Amino acid sequence: MITDQIGRIRIAKPIVFNITNYVTVNDCANILLAIGASPIMADDEKEMEEIVSICRGVVINIGTLNQRTLRSMILAGKKANQLGIPVVFDPVGNGASRLRTEAVNLLLKEVRFAVIRGNVSEIRMACTGKGGTKGVDAGHADATSVENLVAMAQRFSAATGGGIAITGERDVVSSAEKSYVIANGHEKMGRITGAGCMLTALIGSFCAAGGAELENVAAAVGAMGLAGEMAAGICRGTGSFKTGLMDAISNMDDDRLREGIKIEKFKGSAETLCSH
Amino acid sequence: MITDQIGRIRIAKPIVFNITNYVTVNDCANILLAIGASPIMADDEKEMEEIVSICRGVVINIGTLNQRTLRSMILAGKKANQLGIPVVFDPVGNGASRLRTEAVNLLLKEVRFAVIRGNVSEIRMACTGKGGTKGVDAGHADATSVENLVAMAQRFSAATGGGIAITGERDVVSSAEKSYVIANGHEKMGRITGAGCMLTALIGSFCAAGGAELENVAAAVGAMGLAGEMAAGICRGTGSFKTGLMDAISNMDDDRLREGIKIEKFKGSAETLCSH
Amino acid sequence: MITDQIGRIRIAKPIVFNITNYVTVNDCANILLAIGASPIMADDEKEMEEIVSICRGVVINIGTLNQRTLRSMILAGKKANQLGIPVVFDPVGNGASRLRTEAVNLLLKEVRFAVIRGNVSEIRMACTGKGGTKGVDAGHADATSVENLVAMAQRFSAATGGGIAITGERDVVSSAEKSYVIANGHEKMGRITGAGCMLTALIGSFCAAGGAELENVAAAVGAMGLAGEMAAGICRGTGSFKTGLMDAISNMDDDRLREGIKIEKFKGSAETLCSH
Repeated sequence: MITDQIGRIRIAKPIVFNITNYVTVNDCANILLAIGASPIMADDEKEMEEIVSICRGVVINIGTLNQRTLRSMILAGKKANQLGIPVVFDPVGNGASRLRTEAVNLLLKEVRFAVIRGNVSEIRMACTGKGGTKGVDAGHADATSVENLVAMAQRFSAATGGGIAITGERDVVSSAEKSYVIANGHEKMGRITGAGCMLTALIGSFCAAGGAELENVAAAVGAMGLAGEMAAGICRGTGSFKTGLMDAISNMDDDRLREGIKIEKFKGSAETLCSH
Repeated sequence: MITDQIGRIRIAKPIVFNITNYVTVNDCANILLAIGASPIMADDEKEMEEIVSICRGVVINIGTLNQRTLRSMILAGKKANQLGIPVVFDPVGNGASRLRTEAVNLLLKEVRFAVIRGNVSEIRMACTGKGGTKGVDAGHADATSVENLVAMAQRFSAATGGGIAITGERDVVSSAEKSYVIANGHEKMGRITGAGCMLTALIGSFCAAGGAELENVAAAVGAMGLAGEMAAGICRGTGSFKTGLMDAISNMDDDRLREGIKIEKFKGSAETLCSH
Repeated sequence: MITDQIGRIRIAKPIVFNITNYVTVNDCANILLAIGASPIMADDEKEMEEIVSICRGVVINIGTLNQRTLRSMILAGKKANQLGIPVVFDPVGNGASRLRTEAVNLLLKEVRFAVIRGNVSEIRMACTGKGGTKGVDAGHADATSVENLVAMAQRFSAATGGGIAITGERDVVSSAEKSYVIANGHEKMGRITGAGCMLTALIGSFCAAGGAELENVAAAVGAMGLAGEMAAGICRGTGSFKTGLMDAISNMDDDRLREGIKIEKFKGSAETLCSH
């Protein structure tokens, strides 16, 4: 499962281009540098196509979406599709407003995403058009069984053609037919902002260096969760937890990840919950 | 004075919606999570009303004001007023430019604020229309007596109908008739950016969970100051001070706050300095 | 060389106004506070001239450039030129897109910069119009000899009339005739975002308090590199490295800088590589 995913990033130092929100953008840049990638953040539509053409991966995150940057996201996504560069999507807060739901639908229509990562509320809304979200955090009603998560992810993957990562207490990484369940992570990750955004950026770097295969996406998800466990063991609160998380990613390597990742292939039967 | 203010936040996990600046937005989100609230940050006018309707408190901060987000602030504030959701206001840099002074006046006219927090320069400018500011930090000429601060706060509260928090070496939290003086805090809080913005966000979470009564606002001010004292005791510079401040807020509880808060009801006679 | 550069900042507490990117803006504000300056961040064109008029230094950084803020940068730069306030420029990502290259050319035409700081890719592009950039980090092809760097810096300084700082493994600080080479720093500075932006802001504070003479700019460059060395000695990864860097700047003083700075006047012959 874990071969040389992180090693490849450290050797290739791929440029990962992020059109993202201004809340966690600094953390996203720092986690990309910590894992060994080279981040660019930009959002003016005039430079989208040129910047895409010098990068190896694109991350689109609608955290602080506005109408100006939505146009930039579409331009960048389309250009990346033309060039065969993987595009990773984080539909932050999907369901919290019509602006977001419509933006997600438009992006899903205009751009082919290699991977989409969100919490269960965000993915359910994207997948079924139903739901609503408790802000940008997963709602309480979202304590869904792993079987349901897998069913939702597989359906959504079949509809979009890309990998789906639904993260929460258990993480599910899925194609239309195959799913992994990852049990790394720590509840403290929900006590800082940006754990989700940083993971999406991290997935961007894994895809940029090693392609968007399911195992590569799962490795990124496992690395983030494992870093959270390592940071939780030494922190004195949420401030030092965040510092420790960044330290752990910067010290992560394939050996540690191989030893620490708690992953299994989903073997149960996925319930059918989600119809597009 | 301190009963279960923090406990209520940890149980209610209220969504606090912030239209704020891009300098300290990450710190504001993290301090809201540290105290137990659930932050949303957004600014596109198209989604203001929907997001307000899922939240329990709204924080408006004009730190990096622009003409687009000013419209969003007004929309969000008006909607929150309609729904009875408390709105907390931070007039950052009021007095530094006509854009800011006019924005503050417009916001004060259009929105009913439950609490307004600023340094003495910002509040004096809002209250009297006179002053000017040494940037976003309080000017030296602002070494005002507690009596004067109380007078200014009481007048401004009478004019706006909301609570007023003037923070500096001594903090004053005031309604039109009643004032508290809080002596917590540490000079290192002036050596990091965002101590004021984070406090305003924190007040937003206290109001969201427990209402905008003066004692609840004072508890938030005390918690921030106490966290600053705790962080100052263990830091090695301004970087680790900021980390320690976040740790301290994440570990704060009502017992610690009750023991550590240095608060007294103002009993002197408030001089009359400030006429609107 | 090092006399009382940092002491002057701590006494004068100069206001440094930054029109900068939303990725590293928080770090820039914090490093300005750490060294003893007073930061303002704003970008709406309506308030540019008023804010410039209350500050002692202006920093312009095009990291997340957009068409709206470009107008603000020009307004602020021109006003600062009128008032004799030093303007420091960071052409982040110059060469990565036509938008950036054109913005740099326009800013160089409209504004007189006291100092321009960039990596070798960014400066080469500004100086020769040739190059291109590996994103916002210096490209591999940019492992240029010190002689070449000095030649480029001297030519560019002659063309712009201001000081030039090219930072990388070795830093060159140069006027048209005189150059210093600084050997402080640590490779970990390339593993966090914002080391360059923070240095540019820091140069802004040194110029604001002590003028834009070459020795003052070199002191800022040395202080940043020395802080990086101090942080590298005690960090556990890139997260705590960043915290340690901020701590080190907040604890820096002229004595430590005098002892730790590795600087020499360039005495070789500068090759002629760069023609405007």
